[in-house]
Amino acid sequence: MVGETVITVVGNLTADPELRYTQNGLPVANFTIASTPRTMKDGEWTDGDPLFLRASVWREVAEHVASSLTKGMRVVAQGRLRQRSYQDREGNPRTAIELEVDEIGPSLRYATAHVTRAARTDGQRPAAPAPAQEQWATSEPPADGGWTYGDDTPF
Amino acid sequence: MVGETVITVVGNLTADPELRYTQNGLPVANFTIASTPRTMKDGEWTDGDPLFLRASVWREVAEHVASSLTKGMRVVAQGRLRQRSYQDREGNPRTAIELEVDEIGPSLRYATAHVTRAARTDGQRPAAPAPAQEQWATSEPPADGGWTYGDDTPF
Amino acid sequence: MVGETVITVVGNLTADPELRYTQNGLPVANFTIASTPRTMKDGEWTDGDPLFLRASVWREVAEHVASSLTKGMRVVAQGRLRQRSYQDREGNPRTAIELEVDEIGPSLRYATAHVTRAARTDGQRPAAPAPAQEQWATSEPPADGGWTYGDDTPF
Amino acid sequence: MVGETVITVVGNLTADPELRYTQNGLPVANFTIASTPRTMKDGEWTDGDPLFLRASVWREVAEHVASSLTKGMRVVAQGRLRQRSYQDREGNPRTAIELEVDEIGPSLRYATAHVTRAARTDGQRPAAPAPAQEQWATSEPPADGGWTYGDDTPF
Repeated sequence: MVGETVITVVGNLTADPELRYTQNGLPVANFTIASTPRTMKDGEWTDGDPLFLRASVWREVAEHVASSLTKGMRVVAQGRLRQRSYQDREGNPRTAIELEVDEIGPSLRYATAHVTRAARTDGQRPAAPAPAQEQWATSEPPADGGWTYGDDTPF
Repeated sequence: MVGETVITVVGNLTADPELRYTQNGLPVANFTIASTPRTMKDGEWTDGDPLFLRASVWREVAEHVASSLTKGMRVVAQGRLRQRSYQDREGNPRTAIELEVDEIGPSLRYATAHVTRAARTDGQRPAAPAPAQEQWATSEPPADGGWTYGDDTPF
Repeated sequence: MVGETVITVVGNLTADPELRYTQNGLPVANFTIASTPRTMKDGEWTDGDPLFLRASVWREVAEHVASSLTKGMRVVAQGRLRQRSYQDREGNPRTAIELEVDEIGPSLRYATAHVTRAARTDGQRPAAPAPAQEQWATSEPPADGGWTYGDDTPF
Repeated sequence: MVGETVITVVGNLTADPELRYTQNGLPVANFTIASTPRTMKDGEWTDGDPLFLRASVWREVAEHVASSLTKGMRVVAQGRLRQRSYQDREGNPRTAIELEVDEIGPSLRYATAHVTRAARTDGQRPAAPAPAQEQWATSEPPADGGWTYGDDTPF
């Protein structure tokens, strides 16, 4: 795929990532990044309006994100902007702009990290997962009717 | 302002830019950029889902955009992602992600351009604009030698 | 090609673009973009150290660049960072970081543009070019020994 | 500073970061990021020419980088391109393009991370550092519970 709109976002997770698996066993993690610019005014920093960007990441990286990142953490994420169509509760057609993440990591600006190389897997849910894994895998998928975060560009 | 999410979009204008002036006389141009990625599959390019990004640009640049760019033109635009809150027809709160453009120009991928340096102004609409300026402000193409352009370009 | 380092540069051309043709007739244009950041200090803008980035662009776009852009013009350019190895005059191995441009256009910040859609060609030099074209095509290739703009990262 | 060339690089560290302190006690870490693009050809991925980008990061982040990242790790780094002038061994003037890093973190593509929020300091090396700080400043990994990490991650 060429010609995609690549973007890097720096911000904080508004909640723990939600990990779930597709019917084919493919892991996907969803989360929202809040990016808050700041202005220097009269020698003091004040926060600007935050940008809330809904993001998703697939395969092994989804599992790494779910086991590494938690609510409030500052991240650096690079991905591609995607537009998704959906219907709101009144049945109106809406579109939402989201980030499909290619690379993400915890920012070291205010934190340190102990990094562990992951054992390479095929990014698929194991056929017969151990109980602990199964329990971990059941982090709830988002109730789709509740996608009120939606971006809706009225044109 | 630091910490803003800077992004570069390449795409085509879905319509002519709309130029208007704030009550204070500040020019602003609004338009939508459609960015369409492509995939190579079995030796042929196919279009992916387009991203439609609503954009605005302020001051002199707004006037330059309105007098230079038209529907369908391919542009390169750099700006900052902004989130705007509004109410839809049912009164529900909605947010829209838009681009506040800092730099924009016509892409030379499929086009040539005859560039004319603008007379520096203060970016304000004059209270009593001279006729020539007024004419220019109505989104007419500049009546410079530009229309004779192309005679000496070998394609 | 995935995993390339994509970058957008805004700056001014230090000279007219140099257009030449490879032995296979493929057009390539070379130029340098000077990007100068500014700082607000005590209410006044002062220039920071400029970044001089050597750039190249291929095929039809090279011809569009050569016929549209001239020394001093402000451009918006998106491309991929590339590292090139070469020997300096003393025979020492050097590397230079350059920009391979994918999209470029004149910035409308301080200028207007009259845009003309190009007739689609195959990006190849015509087999029997008209004299005017030939003359135009002979803009001199850079004398490679003179690549003193070279970036050389000493590690 | 506005108008700087912002860039995001994804790649691997060619060596452990080098941490040092200026005479004023300001921490700075230097390292090189190798970014290798890949091409799909006949159904197989092959590596392209790598881009080696020299990078520096300042203040607390420098210390966080030195205590978190090691040779070979994949990182996501956002910063500004800078050009530095210097003389080579023969006394010739040279310039080098480098990255001044604003945000950096370990990529979670092939790794997990245990993140620890840093105690906020002023980014200056204390004149008489407390033992724990001094130990931390010598690039040792943080002696928190981090080493026990991984017991409860199912991969």
